[in-house]
Amino acid sequence: MDAQDTAPPRTSLLERHDRGDVMAAACPSRAILSHMTSRWGVLVMVALAEDTHRFSALRRRIGGISERMLAQTLKDLEGDRLVHRHALDTVPPHVEYSLTPLGREAAAHLEALTGWIEDNLPRISGTDSDLS
Amino acid sequence: MDAQDTAPPRTSLLERHDRGDVMAAACPSRAILSHMTSRWGVLVMVALAEDTHRFSALRRRIGGISERMLAQTLKDLEGDRLVHRHALDTVPPHVEYSLTPLGREAAAHLEALTGWIEDNLPRISGTDSDLS
Repeated sequence: MDAQDTAPPRTSLLERHDRGDVMAAACPSRAILSHMTSRWGVLVMVALAEDTHRFSALRRRIGGISERMLAQTLKDLEGDRLVHRHALDTVPPHVEYSLTPLGREAAAHLEALTGWIEDNLPRISGTDSDLS
Repeated sequence: MDAQDTAPPRTSLLERHDRGDVMAAACPSRAILSHMTSRWGVLVMVALAEDTHRFSALRRRIGGISERMLAQTLKDLEGDRLVHRHALDTVPPHVEYSLTPLGREAAAHLEALTGWIEDNLPRISGTDSDLS
């Protein structure tokens, strides 16, 4: 009788494996990846890596984001424990957003990625003669 | 007369700056970021970082991707000089996809990101007691 026979018949993908697998369509890592790499998810994470921001400051920092998309993106990232929403007990209410310790780890990878794109834009766009 | 006065009056955002700025809505880095972090862009880059693949092998490797989305994603990444399409002169035709040197640099950041998500899935999903 091997290990397969003694395994519980119904377990989630996460319980069955030690780690996620983004190549597997059913793996929950796909949803996290999707939130972190959504059109606005990356930029919100990178902006919060710079500093804690109020909603209005985040909106000014990230060119082109709508109020609705910023609210939805923050909600998704909060659900993934990457962003912390801190409501100060003031009149009028003052809400600040910051990265959680987990979010800071994640944001470091996103900053490396966006920094690479910013630095290498001439090579990617073909406006640099030193092509790869 | 300073440098500002001698600058040509109409230059692209890229020409006016030494590097891109993903926070600026009009910066061309936004389109590159969008291709690299699209739902399938990340996974195609990471799969090609593992090995050169034929279209059909890529489709098998990336769970859930449709033929249409894989073709579009490869086309976008090829346009950004990140992916190289190599058509071998055989009957039937044999087409392989690989990362360009530029693509390998980019993929390293995406692999770091997906690896982090895979490793930290229990913490993000809240199935681990050691919460951040």
